[in-house]
Amino acid sequence: MTIRHALKNHRAVDFAAWYQEVVAEADMAEESGVRGCMVIRPWGYGIWERIQRLLDDRIKATGHDNCYFPIFIPLSYFEKEAEHVEGFAKEMAVVTHHRLIGDGKGGLVPDPDAKLEEPLIVRPTSETVIGAAFSRWIQSWRDLPVKINQWANVVRWEMRTRMFLRTSEFLWQEGHTAHATRDEAMAETLAILELYRSFSEDVLAMPVVAGEKPEHERFPGAVATYSIEAMMQDGKALQAGTTHYLGTGFAEAQDIRYQSSDGDHTLVHTTSWGVSTRLIGGVIMTHGDDDGLRVPPMIAPHQIVIVPMLRDNDEDAALLAYCEALAARLREQSALGEPIRVLLDKRPVKAGPKRWSWVKKGAPLIIEIGGRDMAEGKATQIRRDALYRDDGKLASEALALDALVAGAGALLGEIQTRLHREARERLDRSITRDIADRDALKAHFADASAYPGWVEVQWSRPTGADRDAVVEELKALKLTMRNVPRDAAPVDGPCFFSGATAVERILVGRAY
Amino acid sequence: MTIRHALKNHRAVDFAAWYQEVVAEADMAEESGVRGCMVIRPWGYGIWERIQRLLDDRIKATGHDNCYFPIFIPLSYFEKEAEHVEGFAKEMAVVTHHRLIGDGKGGLVPDPDAKLEEPLIVRPTSETVIGAAFSRWIQSWRDLPVKINQWANVVRWEMRTRMFLRTSEFLWQEGHTAHATRDEAMAETLAILELYRSFSEDVLAMPVVAGEKPEHERFPGAVATYSIEAMMQDGKALQAGTTHYLGTGFAEAQDIRYQSSDGDHTLVHTTSWGVSTRLIGGVIMTHGDDDGLRVPPMIAPHQIVIVPMLRDNDEDAALLAYCEALAARLREQSALGEPIRVLLDKRPVKAGPKRWSWVKKGAPLIIEIGGRDMAEGKATQIRRDALYRDDGKLASEALALDALVAGAGALLGEIQTRLHREARERLDRSITRDIADRDALKAHFADASAYPGWVEVQWSRPTGADRDAVVEELKALKLTMRNVPRDAAPVDGPCFFSGATAVERILVGRAY
Repeated sequence: MTIRHALKNHRAVDFAAWYQEVVAEADMAEESGVRGCMVIRPWGYGIWERIQRLLDDRIKATGHDNCYFPIFIPLSYFEKEAEHVEGFAKEMAVVTHHRLIGDGKGGLVPDPDAKLEEPLIVRPTSETVIGAAFSRWIQSWRDLPVKINQWANVVRWEMRTRMFLRTSEFLWQEGHTAHATRDEAMAETLAILELYRSFSEDVLAMPVVAGEKPEHERFPGAVATYSIEAMMQDGKALQAGTTHYLGTGFAEAQDIRYQSSDGDHTLVHTTSWGVSTRLIGGVIMTHGDDDGLRVPPMIAPHQIVIVPMLRDNDEDAALLAYCEALAARLREQSALGEPIRVLLDKRPVKAGPKRWSWVKKGAPLIIEIGGRDMAEGKATQIRRDALYRDDGKLASEALALDALVAGAGALLGEIQTRLHREARERLDRSITRDIADRDALKAHFADASAYPGWVEVQWSRPTGADRDAVVEELKALKLTMRNVPRDAAPVDGPCFFSGATAVERILVGRAY
Repeated sequence: MTIRHALKNHRAVDFAAWYQEVVAEADMAEESGVRGCMVIRPWGYGIWERIQRLLDDRIKATGHDNCYFPIFIPLSYFEKEAEHVEGFAKEMAVVTHHRLIGDGKGGLVPDPDAKLEEPLIVRPTSETVIGAAFSRWIQSWRDLPVKINQWANVVRWEMRTRMFLRTSEFLWQEGHTAHATRDEAMAETLAILELYRSFSEDVLAMPVVAGEKPEHERFPGAVATYSIEAMMQDGKALQAGTTHYLGTGFAEAQDIRYQSSDGDHTLVHTTSWGVSTRLIGGVIMTHGDDDGLRVPPMIAPHQIVIVPMLRDNDEDAALLAYCEALAARLREQSALGEPIRVLLDKRPVKAGPKRWSWVKKGAPLIIEIGGRDMAEGKATQIRRDALYRDDGKLASEALALDALVAGAGALLGEIQTRLHREARERLDRSITRDIADRDALKAHFADASAYPGWVEVQWSRPTGADRDAVVEELKALKLTMRNVPRDAAPVDGPCFFSGATAVERILVGRAY
């Protein structure tokens, strides 16, 4: 039996077009008219606000303070850290003037008399400017550790952009810490990796693999970079968050030293770590279906949307009162540890289009109430995670109000769990571990439309030219190394690429 | 009797130096090394986060959705609204290049091959780019009203900067709405003015006068601008928030029209409104004293700070356990409608300096606990709003834990009320209404060190050259017109300046 889905584009047919349609139809974001920058619309921004609040709570609970640093970074700050700037220099917005003047023809131009002596860079990331602050703040071992975080916008000039996944401006949090020892800094780096992993699984219901990036995929200037990699429904990887152990390189460039109890002036060890609005792209491609987005209840701005079937007549007032009373009762209930977030959608729109707008946005529970429901003391419930019956009809269920109210909290919890389980099972079954040789690898990835997922191979972690050869070989298949999973099985065979002794297992796949 | 205060600079002696010292000593903000931009430090940013959360709740409760718009605005957008750009054109950060390259001497320069065809402006405010979105979003009367808000950073190039009060980059919220009629848009403008007024009074404990700005002080492009004006302890005014009725001017420039039920394509009426990190400067200059900041409990990141008198010996563990237990009990209490926010300060710093660091930061309640307190089942409480006894000694009070816990919520409420009352009384007594003539006006403001406050005069609201003459006359006394209070008494005399019939009362004073 064929279901007529709410979206024109289907995941199995054209994943890229499907993604774009979800972004538009779910009221997530739109082109801004400004090159590479998006407008994040209310439902998309509401999801970001939920992510911010829940992640911020976890960041604060682990002893980090929020601060705010300037959006502009003087050019000279970048010149100090050669390796770092090498990685970013090619794609930054440069402010050169601080005034406009009329061009004499009714237009405006940068005022030549207002040229900056030193150009300012719109921050692509804040290691340099925060390092300068650390060098002021840190004098003694008593000042350590310094653990701070910032929520901010950053800009990296991008030639090809895609909403949420790659935009010139994006929103993120960036954590920056300084420690007395390598061990402490590494412990922080891994603790945040685990924080990101559990946040992604528990809050976003988005399963990920946490592991170390190979050397050539490290953050510019980092000694070690770790990531969480999520699997999208087309089998591609999305690097959803990274944590970096920066060693003493940034400390040396910025002269961040502390006087130890022995009186020595010692360089600190720093870390940095971030996740961004990219997570929203991950949520869409993890949970969306051919009817639109499905938002995990923990991050849904509205977890329950009540749609009154208004008829523009005298009965509407009673119906609205009935709906208001239900909304109030539901708001007194808890789901997933918080009061339930309920919207009564009173817009002057017909009930059908209104229902489908919330299906496309992915509100976890939609409750429709018409005159008959009211007469019977009932309401009709639609679960976004189980939209259709076996016969292809919409799976709506009329429930007595008491039962609906009593069950709402647990049901939202169940939806959260189910979305996670579904995605976890997909990730697990989409990692292939028995690819025997190069031909098999090539064959495995030959048909991109089959969404081949990732392959885990054992390798000897070569360096230099040997490593470059492997990278090139994979690149020819449009593959990249994702990460070395922290929880991978021990090695038990030779290097997939060279036949030498393998030292670790690494994931390989296509990526966003 | 002389009190030896915690700050070197006192308000009565050098208000500007006192302000700078509070900003530094209360861990609020510091120079960033980037021209005109500040680093907002943890305590300062924590206060901003409280302001954000409480104001955001109110903005959402009145039907506004949060969105996010690009930081960059194409130059051509500004060229469309001539009156608007006139007000801002002189002070904007202009992005002209999107890449850096090596200069061959180890440095970096903007890449001449990466010059933008059209320069981008770092947003000084977002009317133009949000107007472009409105023109896409609004088609029919059914789409109205559109009521959105954004939390963002903005940049206005400033030559002379002062922390929180005037910085090149600052953080703010900007609300933008579109309505079918002038009346609706004006109602929104005034509703937000009232929201700002009550927020300032009830949350910041900062009394303000809400009123309309005179024509020459309007926002560029606005038809009417309203402000809340707060009185600082040196008698100067701080414009703490503004709301604007923009008429149809922006709608015309951006072609924002709706099809009415009659089928006409009609221009919408828009509003905009904002408050910024400037509010923090207002809080400092409203509530600070010669011992530092006093943070109103509603916006204090920590309302109660527990300082254990650690001795670096075996008894510390028991003392910390005692403190932890008290912290847990206090966190179960509510103050001002929320759970009490409690910090146990375990830093390896001596109790004395630790106490004074929290006095300077202005934590509302400081609780010190030493071995003797513990032995007696007590704790010693210091109210930041009543720091000294009549004899000049620190007013600390040892209380049994049960009494302290039971009283904490009400006490924090009392501190909030008291800070507001104190500031309200100061504002009320610092407005002079009986200035007879120009000589009296001049005499009133002759001695700035006497903190002469504001003067309310009746005026005939002249226009053109007559108005300019009044503005110039006031400027010679370093005075500006602040606003026409909404709740001013009716006029009952002639215009202070011209002797003509007065039409309204207006506040005049020095300002930040």
